[in-house]
Amino acid sequence: MHILILGAAGMVGRKLLARLAQDGQLGGTAVTRLTLHDVVAPEAPPVRVPVSLSASDFSAPGEAERLVAGRPDVIFHLAAIVSGEAEADFDKGYRINLDGTRQLFDAVRAIGEGYRPRLVFTSSIAVFGAPMPEPIGDEYLTAPLTSYGTQKAIGELLLSDYTRRGIFDGVGIRLPTICVRPGKPNKAASGFFSGIIREPLAGQEAVLPVSDSVRHWHASPRAAVGFLLHAATIDGARLGDRRNLTMPGVAVTVAEQIEALRRIAGDAVVARIRREPDPTIERIVAGWPRAFDARRATELGFTAEPDFETIIRAHIEDELGGRIAA
Amino acid sequence: MHILILGAAGMVGRKLLARLAQDGQLGGTAVTRLTLHDVVAPEAPPVRVPVSLSASDFSAPGEAERLVAGRPDVIFHLAAIVSGEAEADFDKGYRINLDGTRQLFDAVRAIGEGYRPRLVFTSSIAVFGAPMPEPIGDEYLTAPLTSYGTQKAIGELLLSDYTRRGIFDGVGIRLPTICVRPGKPNKAASGFFSGIIREPLAGQEAVLPVSDSVRHWHASPRAAVGFLLHAATIDGARLGDRRNLTMPGVAVTVAEQIEALRRIAGDAVVARIRREPDPTIERIVAGWPRAFDARRATELGFTAEPDFETIIRAHIEDELGGRIAA
Repeated sequence: MHILILGAAGMVGRKLLARLAQDGQLGGTAVTRLTLHDVVAPEAPPVRVPVSLSASDFSAPGEAERLVAGRPDVIFHLAAIVSGEAEADFDKGYRINLDGTRQLFDAVRAIGEGYRPRLVFTSSIAVFGAPMPEPIGDEYLTAPLTSYGTQKAIGELLLSDYTRRGIFDGVGIRLPTICVRPGKPNKAASGFFSGIIREPLAGQEAVLPVSDSVRHWHASPRAAVGFLLHAATIDGARLGDRRNLTMPGVAVTVAEQIEALRRIAGDAVVARIRREPDPTIERIVAGWPRAFDARRATELGFTAEPDFETIIRAHIEDELGGRIAA
Repeated sequence: MHILILGAAGMVGRKLLARLAQDGQLGGTAVTRLTLHDVVAPEAPPVRVPVSLSASDFSAPGEAERLVAGRPDVIFHLAAIVSGEAEADFDKGYRINLDGTRQLFDAVRAIGEGYRPRLVFTSSIAVFGAPMPEPIGDEYLTAPLTSYGTQKAIGELLLSDYTRRGIFDGVGIRLPTICVRPGKPNKAASGFFSGIIREPLAGQEAVLPVSDSVRHWHASPRAAVGFLLHAATIDGARLGDRRNLTMPGVAVTVAEQIEALRRIAGDAVVARIRREPDPTIERIVAGWPRAFDARRATELGFTAEPDFETIIRAHIEDELGGRIAA
């Protein structure tokens, strides 16, 4: 099985790659070739099969065609300009997230000759915008309030139509906010959801810019990899014509996140969270979804953590070697 | 006020134009200039203001820029490859309905300098696809089952995002099936909804290819013009961020359509309807929406006919000079 990953140098891409390298197979079929792409060079994984690495703007003319020329059996399309940047740079967001996605889809179509790969597209809960019910069901309107969410919602529509047309066999997965995101704090408005767990566990102070009552929808990086693998191997016919699924997750308030941290790591760790309200972030976060009823995905076998404690424990195991900074 | 109409030679475009020519104003402001475009040359309306007529493929390079160069205050974007053709010709449908729409939107953006026209976009109930509730509410998922519906749904998403960005002030209206459509029978799968009224009233036989129990969502050409004028003049702020509205209409079964015809025109006219079931059309129609709860549009002042008899009477007045063929 030949696998193509676009966005292979990103956090989720690297986790997916590590898992594929470890398993050596996908859905019971041996991985025989990897084509890895990102805007920066992806790292070569420790595998004994041929690996092609490349770095480019995949929306540039000819790039998508080049990437699919080897007719990968499974394409993971994880590449995207993230929310904040797509909002700040209108042209770049549309060029990569919309045009790039469409060029990839059209490159698959151009091959023809019965080529019909599984194409896994990572969408986002940003396809939803306020006002929203709580929880949001599988039939709720996608009315995004950001250009990023708009571009992802358009990608979903194209994915369904191209699948219906028999061009590829697409599965779109709307990822929850990934928490606990490893690595350094970043400037994303959602960064604090991970920061208030990650930094205290590492012995550092974290800033909480919103109220404890803010509720949000989370899944671990480990769960995200599980979603991707399941999306790559599920029988597409089970999805019918609606190819985009809200992934399961854990709906918790910030207060519940903190209490889970306290139960696992104690008061001294929780004391490293400093409250510093930021009206700008509070306003942005107020427009975000809080909870979903991810019934279709759950019935189709996608699974997330049962609770936020499990999410924290996954972080401690996967990123901290099981150790908490006292 | 300078008005641009794309799709000015189509049925709805011509009705809109006739109404604008008759009124001489829009929302209380005198129409001072008309720019009319279609893929075939639009007819010059009987007005005393400057009219620019042009025929071209508006998705061709530079065309959208040329059309908006005169900075129209109101843009009616009615141009589209219709459902059947967009399904039969993948490239043409995406090129006109998606790329053309986006190029128009980007041409407005390119002007900048505070230019921010009202842009009225005609979408369609084809943005919905089975399974659907009955009626379909304003917050129901747009999950189209045709390329045309996909392209319209994408146009809606772009309309909202470009409006949110301040590029223009967009209002998208999802038209019901227009009934009674004047003119000759066409090959559209939906053609019979009009044909079973239009042909018998004109003394001709009409074929009914589906069961009497089929229910569908209708509005007259006169109502469609009313939607367009209201969409052009409504205070955009009242719509908030969700710029796309399902228009009101009349939900009736074919049996109810026929009974309305019988009440207005009698048994002899109804006897001109010949039942000739067509499994292909029955299958297509089974995937179509049947009824809507168009609450938002109704609250915003959009109005359709109260019942199907009124739709038939509008046709007799507007197209038949008040006369029914005995």
